[in-house]
Amino acid sequence: MPEVRIVLVGPKFEGNVGAVARAMANFDIDELYLVEPCELGDDAYRRAKHGSDVLDKAVTVHTMDEAVEGCFLVAGTSGIITHGDRNYTRLPIKIREFVQQVSGYEERIAIVFGREDVGLYQDELNKCDVFIHVPTSEKYPTLNLSHAATLVMYEFFQSGNITRRAEPADRKEKEYMLSFFDDLMDAIDYPEHRRSDTSVMFRRMMGRSIPTKYEYNTIMGIFGDASKIIKKGKKWG
Amino acid sequence: MPEVRIVLVGPKFEGNVGAVARAMANFDIDELYLVEPCELGDDAYRRAKHGSDVLDKAVTVHTMDEAVEGCFLVAGTSGIITHGDRNYTRLPIKIREFVQQVSGYEERIAIVFGREDVGLYQDELNKCDVFIHVPTSEKYPTLNLSHAATLVMYEFFQSGNITRRAEPADRKEKEYMLSFFDDLMDAIDYPEHRRSDTSVMFRRMMGRSIPTKYEYNTIMGIFGDASKIIKKGKKWG
Repeated sequence: MPEVRIVLVGPKFEGNVGAVARAMANFDIDELYLVEPCELGDDAYRRAKHGSDVLDKAVTVHTMDEAVEGCFLVAGTSGIITHGDRNYTRLPIKIREFVQQVSGYEERIAIVFGREDVGLYQDELNKCDVFIHVPTSEKYPTLNLSHAATLVMYEFFQSGNITRRAEPADRKEKEYMLSFFDDLMDAIDYPEHRRSDTSVMFRRMMGRSIPTKYEYNTIMGIFGDASKIIKKGKKWG
Repeated sequence: MPEVRIVLVGPKFEGNVGAVARAMANFDIDELYLVEPCELGDDAYRRAKHGSDVLDKAVTVHTMDEAVEGCFLVAGTSGIITHGDRNYTRLPIKIREFVQQVSGYEERIAIVFGREDVGLYQDELNKCDVFIHVPTSEKYPTLNLSHAATLVMYEFFQSGNITRRAEPADRKEKEYMLSFFDDLMDAIDYPEHRRSDTSVMFRRMMGRSIPTKYEYNTIMGIFGDASKIIKKGKKWG
């Protein structure tokens, strides 16, 4: 995964800067560059919450050039895209594709977000190596600044991160559990000709659900008890 | 793609509700339910921007049950997850996987977000068929409410056209089926103190598996017969 630097060019609302800082902390990204930003006061810190460290360490500069110094790739963003192929400066790559494309690098990438109202100026866009885009509604494509940044960072985080799952039951346990289901069908005198189909049906349900060891054991216990009680009842009944 | 209903339970800051409404407009989602929300005033509308229609049409209710009425699947969200497999009520599915799993349905899904500070209460989480999660930093996992909602809606928007799935059981059928599972626990004298946990566990297994109407009916029949036979046995035994 590349190192990600977030660059906000000319943000006008300190609340948005704070919200971006919070989202950065949420996705383990801590390098924030601000180009000619509004003043950052209480509202920025209030919105940053535990991302206040990110705000404290933010680097303020005067130009976009300074802000992307040291980055091997500069990706510009904008809500405004084009569908013709003439204005190649606004021909976008979808953010997810972009992240996949760069996920093998470890160098530093700058993701540049423009002003809340007018975005990046043309000369700023011209300095970007790629123009990335979050797919949105055609009716109302313009995302809030911190929402756009959150989505981009999420995609980076997502591509590098695999959550450990709770341990699934292994094959033997699973077969054992399915046999308890078969026993239960047997106990209730489930119609013979439907048993094998229903058994497969249950296997498929479990296959989609991928139960944990704990879940398997619990369900197995219930089926097992039910079968036992019914069969005992039959013996004595 | 399923129809998505966004449910905010007990939101405390009107700005967040407005920001969620804007993001909904960004992703062509327009059904917003608010459970006992804070008052919505200028700040909500200021943040909603062109999503103000969504705010105007938002339905305010008193309980989560009312808010998920008519949805075939209820997905709860929370920043707090668990890594053990015992607390299955907080065993999460990653949002991207969840969206892939349900993308073949056209029925209505409720995505439920909790309060900004404490999230969903345990009894609210227990009513969810699945528990979905946005992967975030372990150091600071708690997303802003509107950021979380934005990420979830983005994933739905991203996921394309997928083959239609077999008709899932509706909510009423599902509740009915879960009650047959409870009956079975009752019939086998399953330990009282574990019943409610095990009931939620089974709901979650079914939530992940999303059974069809046929599967539900079949399982319901087996549980029902087993309970009946056991109870009859007790009466005569």
